[in-house]
This record gives sequence, C-alpha cells and structure tokens, in this order.
Amino acid sequence: MRNLYQVKQEICAIGDRLYKRGYAAGNDGNISFRISDNEVVCTPTMISKGFMTPDDLCIVDMNGKQLSGKRKATSEIRLHLAVMKERPEVKSVVHCHPPYATAFGMAREPIPPCALPEVEIHLGEVPIAKYAIPGGQEFADTILPFVHKTKVIVLANHGTVSWGETPERAYWWTEILDAYCHMLILAKSIGNVGYFTKEEAEQLLALKKAWGGSDPRFEMQNCDICANDVFRDSWKDAGLARHGFNPPTYAEKSDTSPDEKEALIAEITKRVVDALTKK
Amino acid sequence: MRNLYQVKQEICAIGDRLYKRGYAAGNDGNISFRISDNEVVCTPTMISKGFMTPDDLCIVDMNGKQLSGKRKATSEIRLHLAVMKERPEVKSVVHCHPPYATAFGMAREPIPPCALPEVEIHLGEVPIAKYAIPGGQEFADTILPFVHKTKVIVLANHGTVSWGETPERAYWWTEILDAYCHMLILAKSIGNVGYFTKEEAEQLLALKKAWGGSDPRFEMQNCDICANDVFRDSWKDAGLARHGFNPPTYAEKSDTSPDEKEALIAEITKRVVDALTKK
Amino acid sequence: MRNLYQVKQEICAIGDRLYKRGYAAGNDGNISFRISDNEVVCTPTMISKGFMTPDDLCIVDMNGKQLSGKRKATSEIRLHLAVMKERPEVKSVVHCHPPYATAFGMAREPIPPCALPEVEIHLGEVPIAKYAIPGGQEFADTILPFVHKTKVIVLANHGTVSWGETPERAYWWTEILDAYCHMLILAKSIGNVGYFTKEEAEQLLALKKAWGGSDPRFEMQNCDICANDVFRDSWKDAGLARHGFNPPTYAEKSDTSPDEKEALIAEITKRVVDALTKK
Amino acid sequence: MRNLYQVKQEICAIGDRLYKRGYAAGNDGNISFRISDNEVVCTPTMISKGFMTPDDLCIVDMNGKQLSGKRKATSEIRLHLAVMKERPEVKSVVHCHPPYATAFGMAREPIPPCALPEVEIHLGEVPIAKYAIPGGQEFADTILPFVHKTKVIVLANHGTVSWGETPERAYWWTEILDAYCHMLILAKSIGNVGYFTKEEAEQLLALKKAWGGSDPRFEMQNCDICANDVFRDSWKDAGLARHGFNPPTYAEKSDTSPDEKEALIAEITKRVVDALTKK
Repeated sequence: MRNLYQVKQEICAIGDRLYKRGYAAGNDGNISFRISDNEVVCTPTMISKGFMTPDDLCIVDMNGKQLSGKRKATSEIRLHLAVMKERPEVKSVVHCHPPYATAFGMAREPIPPCALPEVEIHLGEVPIAKYAIPGGQEFADTILPFVHKTKVIVLANHGTVSWGETPERAYWWTEILDAYCHMLILAKSIGNVGYFTKEEAEQLLALKKAWGGSDPRFEMQNCDICANDVFRDSWKDAGLARHGFNPPTYAEKSDTSPDEKEALIAEITKRVVDALTKK
Repeated sequence: MRNLYQVKQEICAIGDRLYKRGYAAGNDGNISFRISDNEVVCTPTMISKGFMTPDDLCIVDMNGKQLSGKRKATSEIRLHLAVMKERPEVKSVVHCHPPYATAFGMAREPIPPCALPEVEIHLGEVPIAKYAIPGGQEFADTILPFVHKTKVIVLANHGTVSWGETPERAYWWTEILDAYCHMLILAKSIGNVGYFTKEEAEQLLALKKAWGGSDPRFEMQNCDICANDVFRDSWKDAGLARHGFNPPTYAEKSDTSPDEKEALIAEITKRVVDALTKK
Repeated sequence: MRNLYQVKQEICAIGDRLYKRGYAAGNDGNISFRISDNEVVCTPTMISKGFMTPDDLCIVDMNGKQLSGKRKATSEIRLHLAVMKERPEVKSVVHCHPPYATAFGMAREPIPPCALPEVEIHLGEVPIAKYAIPGGQEFADTILPFVHKTKVIVLANHGTVSWGETPERAYWWTEILDAYCHMLILAKSIGNVGYFTKEEAEQLLALKKAWGGSDPRFEMQNCDICANDVFRDSWKDAGLARHGFNPPTYAEKSDTSPDEKEALIAEITKRVVDALTKK
Repeated sequence: MRNLYQVKQEICAIGDRLYKRGYAAGNDGNISFRISDNEVVCTPTMISKGFMTPDDLCIVDMNGKQLSGKRKATSEIRLHLAVMKERPEVKSVVHCHPPYATAFGMAREPIPPCALPEVEIHLGEVPIAKYAIPGGQEFADTILPFVHKTKVIVLANHGTVSWGETPERAYWWTEILDAYCHMLILAKSIGNVGYFTKEEAEQLLALKKAWGGSDPRFEMQNCDICANDVFRDSWKDAGLARHGFNPPTYAEKSDTSPDEKEALIAEITKRVVDALTKK
C-alpha cells in the first residue's frame, strides 16, 4: 500500500511522462488519485505538469472543496470527480491534450475501431463526448453517457480523459489511444486503413471475453463490432460525422471517388444534351 | 523575489525546454528578463538555447546597449525591448521558431480561433505580424499594431514572440500556441475542423471576462468572435489569406469543391456546344 | 561474455530507448534474450517498457513455460521463440509498435525498397506478415514464411519484430526501418519518391554481397531487385496491395492520374454520344 | 585550445544530440574533427551515435588509413576527408539522416529558398548532390561541385553532410536545415508557402554581405535570388525536378491546376466532336 507521499510522487512522475510526450502544453492537463472515500489528491492549476514536486499537489473532497495544498486545485477536478462518483472502483483519473487523439475530437471524426488488436483488447470503442464549456458541472457531465462503457473518452474540441487503479494505468489508456490515432492518420496518408474482417473482429472480442475483459459489444444484439455501433447514438448530439475514416462495413461508401465521378459524368452529359436540345 | 542568479538559471531552464521541444535549431531563439527599469538579462547570440549556463547570459539597457556579459547579446533583443517598452508590466519575452506555429507564419495563413477552449481563454486570437528583415528596428516595430491586444504573435516567415511575468509564463503561450497549430494541421488532415457555434464562442468569451481575462473582442462592436475579426485589417499588409482553414462563419465558402466542379461542367458544356455550333 | 544481470540491464536500456522513441505505448512491446539452449530472459506483461529494472524480468524455457521471475512473462513470447527456434544463431528478439512502420502494416501497403542505401544493405526487402489474432501459436507462426530471409518483419495490423545477436542489434533494425518508413511518407507528401535505377540497385546488391551480407535477391532468377519480388507471393494472403507507393519498375502504372483522366474522358464521350444518339 | 579528450567528448555530446533528434537510426551517421594536418578523429562504424564514449572513437590519416582506436573507423570517412581536403579551414564534419531534409533528397525535390531569414543568412541555397553508391571515392566526390559554395549538402537518397570549425557548429547547419525542411512540408500541408518578394530577398542578401557572410549569389550575374539559380545546373545530373514546391519566380507555373483543367476540357471537347463527326 502506497503512502500519501508515494502517491504524490507517482502523480509527479506521470506528469513528467505526459509532458515529455507533448500531451500538456503550458498549464494543460491534470491528474488525480483518490486516497479515501472523501479525499482526492490532485494537481494544481497554473503549473506545468512536467515540473511538479509532491509539495505542489492539493487535496480536495468529493465535492471539489479544497482541503489542503498551498496551490489552488484545478477547476477541472469536477471532471475527475464525475468519473470517480460513477465508478467507485476507479482510483485515478488523467486528463490531458494528446495531439492525435485531440485532433479526432477537434475534427469531430469518430475513431474507427478494428485496426489494431491491442486497442480492441485494452480500449475497445472510444467515444467522443460532446463539447461543453470547461470548468463547470455541465462539462463534467458530458462524460456520463459513456463512463460505464469505456476507460478513455475523447472530449470534443478539448482533449482526453482516462482512468484506472493507479495514475500509471490511467495514463496508459491515453498513451495507447494517442499512438493509435497517430497510426490511423499515417495509414490514411499512405493510402488506406486495412481493417479486420468480421471473423477476425469476432475472434478478438471472444478472446477479450475469455481474458476477463469487459466490452459493451458483448451485450449488444446485432452489433456490428467494427462499425462504431456502441456510441453511434451520441454522434448527432456531439456533431460527429465520418469525413476521413470509414470502418470496414462502410467500405463501399468510403471510396466516394467513383460516385463523385459518376455524378460529374451524369451532370456533364445532361448539360450537353440540354444545351444541344435547346438549340 | 528571485536574485539575479536565479533569474539566469530560469532562463537557462526555459532554454532547455524550448530546445527539447524543437523550437530552436542551431543558434535560433532568444529569451529576456527585465531586472530593473533599465536593465534586461538576455541570451547571447551564437549559442544553442539548450546548452546555456547562467555565465553565458548578458545584460543590456533599454536601448539595447550591452552592459555586461562575456558573450555578445542577441541582435534580436530590439524585438524584446519593443514589447517591454509598450507593456511595462511585462518582465520576460521569449522568441523562437516552434515548427507548427511558424508554418502558419510561413504559409501566411490566419490561425483560425474557436476550436479549443484553453486557447481562447489563454491566447484568444493570435495575430501574424508582417515580415521585416530581422535584427533592426523595423523588424522590432512589426509587433506594434498587436502588442497591446495579445501575449503571443506569429512573425510572418520568421517565428513567434510571447511574453509574461516570468520566462516560464512567456514560454507557456508559445507552447500552447504550437500545440494548437499542430492539432489544427492534424484535424485538417483527418477531414475538417469542427469549430464552436456562435453561442459556444460567446459563452466562452463571457467566462473569460468573468475570470478576469482580457480580450479585444470584449470591446468590439458587431464582432464575429470566430472570424479573425480582431486582426483582419492587418492581413493585406502582411500578405495573409485563407488557403487551408476557414472559421465557422466562412464555412459556406470553404468547401470550394462544388464550385470548382460547377465551373468545370459549365466550361465543358460551353466548349462542346461551341465546337458543335461552329461546325 | 555478459552475465545474467548485464543481459537484464541491456534489455532494460533498450526498453528505455524504444519507449523514448514512441515505439511502445502503455504496456506494448517486448524484448527477449536467449541465455542457454533452453532459457530465454524476457520482459513481463503489463509493464511500460520505459520503466523496467532487471528485477522485473522473467525467464522462460523454449516452450514458453515460465521458469523464474516475480512478474508474469509476456504472452507474446511465442513470437520470439518461433524466431529463435528457426534461427538458432539469433540471441535476441524485439517486438514493438513503431508508428511509421506499423502504419504501413495497418495500411497493408508493401514497403517500397530501393530508396536509401543503408536500408538495402542492412534490411533489404521488408515483408509484411499476415494478420493473426495475437498471443497464440497461429500468431507466432505468421513469421515462418519470412524468418529465414530477413531480420525484420512488419506484422499486419500489429507492429514489428526484429532480431540479432544482442538486444541492441535486434533493436537497430526496427529503428532503421521506422526512420525509413517516416521518410517514405514525407517524400510522398513532398511529391514523389525517387528510386534507384536498375544499375544503381544492382551495384548496391553487389556491394552487399562483397561485404558478406545475405539477401534473398542474390539467389533469385529474373528478380527485379526493386519490385518487391522477394515477398510478392505473400501479398494475397496478407491482403496487401499498392495504394500509396510504387517502386521504379512500376512507375508507368504508378501515375494513375493520366489513366483516370483517360477513363473519365472516354466515359463522358460515350455518354454524350449515347445521349445524342438516342435522341 | 581543446585537448584530444575534450574533442572526443564534444563529438560524443553531438552524437547524443543528433541521436535524440532522430537524425541517426541504428548505426547511422558519423562525426569527425581534424586535430592536425594529417590526423582526424572520427566515429567508428557499427555503433549508435547516441551512446558513444571517448574511448570508442578512432583516429585516421587524411587518406583514411586508421592510425588508432579499438573500433573500426567508419567507411564514410572518405566523405569527410573530401570536404576537409577542399576546405582546409574546416575542422569538423557531420553526416547523418535528418528525416525532413533527407525526405527532400529522397523526393529529389529542390529545397526552395527565400522563406525564412535565418536560413538565408546561415545556409543560403542548399544543393542536393547526385546519388552514388556509399563508402567509396565516387560517393565522396559527389560533394565536389558544391563544397566551396555552401556548408551543408543534401545527398540524394542518402542524408546530409555539413561542416564547421567545431562539431557543434557543423551540427548546427544540419539542425537548422532539418527544421526548415519540416516547416516547408507543414506550410505546404496548410496551403502554400509565402516567399520573400524580390526586394525582401535582395535586402536580406545585402545584410548577409554586410555581416561578413559569403554567398555564391553575391557574385552571380542576373541571378534570381530565390529561384535556386546557384545549383540549377546540377539538377539534371542528380535527377531533380520540382514537384511539391515552387519558389516565387515560378509561381505562375506552380499552380498547375488550371492548366490541367484546360487540357482536360480541351481533350473532352475534341473527343465529343470527333465522336459526333465520325457518326
């Protein structure tokens, strides 16, 4: 069992990692760890996450009221507390702005699943929560529709939030997600993303189940594993739409080029004939 | 209160940070801190900013005349002094070449606002100052139209300059800007940037006001918050034009593809008919 | 001769390198070293490869049965053992997820050879093994068609595996491959990749032979050195196809733009004529 | 004056910098320093440049014959010696594979000048030397047409070489070039590169002259400063052609889109008319 000082040291160590990865510019990002039913250690506002010492950290209660610490606790602690209230087994929450995952949230592009097995096993489908003005309860509550079905969420036009038993575990899901989003963008720039077949996806989900993982797709009826079915209902509210990526079941729609050409050809033909007919 | 040695140490530490982030190749970049009415500590020329010791730093007066230091002070100190003269409360200035922000200045592309709340709160609209040959007073003066309305400026075909109460704060605004510019480029490569709605942008600006921030958009009449209205007048002089990004109010003009196709179709039709008519 | 503790230290040092390069997010990646006929030191599961100490490592036998170690050995050890069984002279195997090389495996795009001499000399053609669900023997066996002809393999939708006499050497081939894949993507974004001529490629292969290197192209009849001939037969099985890159001998097919335009023109012409004829 | 051990330490420190920047994968890259008329300290082959100690370095004579060192000197030392023979004032040479600059050499795309003043002042026009098989004298001699007119050269399909009075200075020019090439690629992805006007370019070159710099454009008659005139004659031999970037004087040719559309329109028209005429 860690003592308080060790918890603070681990938070600072994770702060160093996420700063070095470029997930937190300026004073961005915050990390928390629940040390009792009503006490949460968290990072303060207006500090670079890459240069903290245990002495810089704060303690707040589950309502966000600051209990100790010479610096002011982050106003984004409400987001962390919202996760902890919904998921009492969660001890630690990490919020930051990893560039590739945040870019999907800024582009409001659903993250296609079914391209890397580790991502399926560890993360499954990753939702993008709708944008809300930061700092307040409305912002914290944007994670509510998703918090029981995932351990990492992209916040539209904002960043990411992930959680686990320790700061390191909470951080891992962010790191895995950002690496995945980077590779998706690279694969797109090479030419295309090759997704799993239906059979491969089902086999992977069965393995996840056998290994004791949880995934909302286990319970869903007629779920297309690779089609972002789990969180599709939230797209309209969050302003999401596919622009750059299509999962395998949408492959026939994804290559819009032939359709565009067909439309172009049909339109030209119509115009020529119209013009000639009028004559 | 920091003593002179501590100030020099902090400048070296920020030099290390910006070097590691890749904001200063070769001898690029410079950092300054005002220690009295007429004395400014600054970095020397011809040194890598990632490998300085306090002993390498110089002191100049407010006219740029070197007062002490075994190395020659940077010729770009005039840019720093121009900021300090206009904004006496500013203690520290950082100038460097962060790749993503500098790329906007090299592309002469206005930086679209209204895509990340932290950027609105901390930076607001970021102007791009017109290019001038470096080193002299004309170069330093390119920041004058903007210096009272922002804390970070992109210098066309050059780099960035930002300022604050300490070297770290001055550095933060550059780091936040460069991370934002990186994400903009990534979101574009994914498909599109999803901007705030008018209501979301107004809510954010109201929050900024409530938190005691300052923003030129507070004062403007009929200002379209997200349309780069604050610095639009400077575009012609700086040779800026939208090529890659359009803020939400320009969305209808941004998707030029349909227009291009329409023009193509109309032209082909005309040619075919002309050719057939001549016959 | 290294003792066991030194071997473990080297594995941790290489873990640190590959973490810093961004080749292993979360608990991704694993490293092994064979210390006797039936003993292999390897990294455990559920640990970040950037933060291991010698005490964290495990020993398994050649069937993957764990012999010692307080942590559980990685389930991906079967992949390492498959290499070591086929290539008894190989002492060390590295598996990880370098972003640029993995992106080729995710895009299922063959890696074009003949663009950098060091890559030809050190790596030669790099195959992409077909995807299989990770952890089991089927996954480990995907490398069998390639293991005698290369020292680095991209695993479709997964990552890379490379091997050598020491952990550092095994790691080098991954590092060289990922840097090469990065430059290929950059060269494509600039405009095109300029490949070696047939003569330049033959000269390079002759040098490789003179320097004592091995390359399956030495033995092949009528092999087009730069056309991915060595592993072409595996493409269908692995779902590979050229989308973004074409080697020099395919240059006439690579610029599909003229063909596409030709098809477009022919189709429009046909439609106009058909439409007019029907009238 | 540095002693031999200090020279070796500086070479190792620069090796560390270039490894951390990602300029040398595996055993890539080499660094040299001339310590007397006929003695040059250099890095050995088959070592990572990020993990050297002074004890690893070698001494060769000006013919490349190894005089001391427990490791084998790099075979690429001939490239370094070719620079030192032509430019006796040069003490140190750095060769490596920085990703963005090497990508221009792999794309065989001339590097457009006139977009960043520091690059004009420090580097001026950067040539791309034709490809030759590495290791031998033919490879070393590819730099001969350029060595007196620049301090950094891109080697087609290979990497870069730069030189100066010390290893750090030699390294700087590579670092500045690679940062510039990165920004060019980013600016292109944003939309376009905004180059200096003719007047701005002339003013900058005059400043370079006043500051004691040297630039082949000082001597040229009717030289278009920004049009890559200095090394244009070498393009054919090196297989260079503009695909992605055009300097300002070529702007009218750079936007090929209208031309392509014109050709498309003309061709369609011709086909329709031909088809109708034949009937």
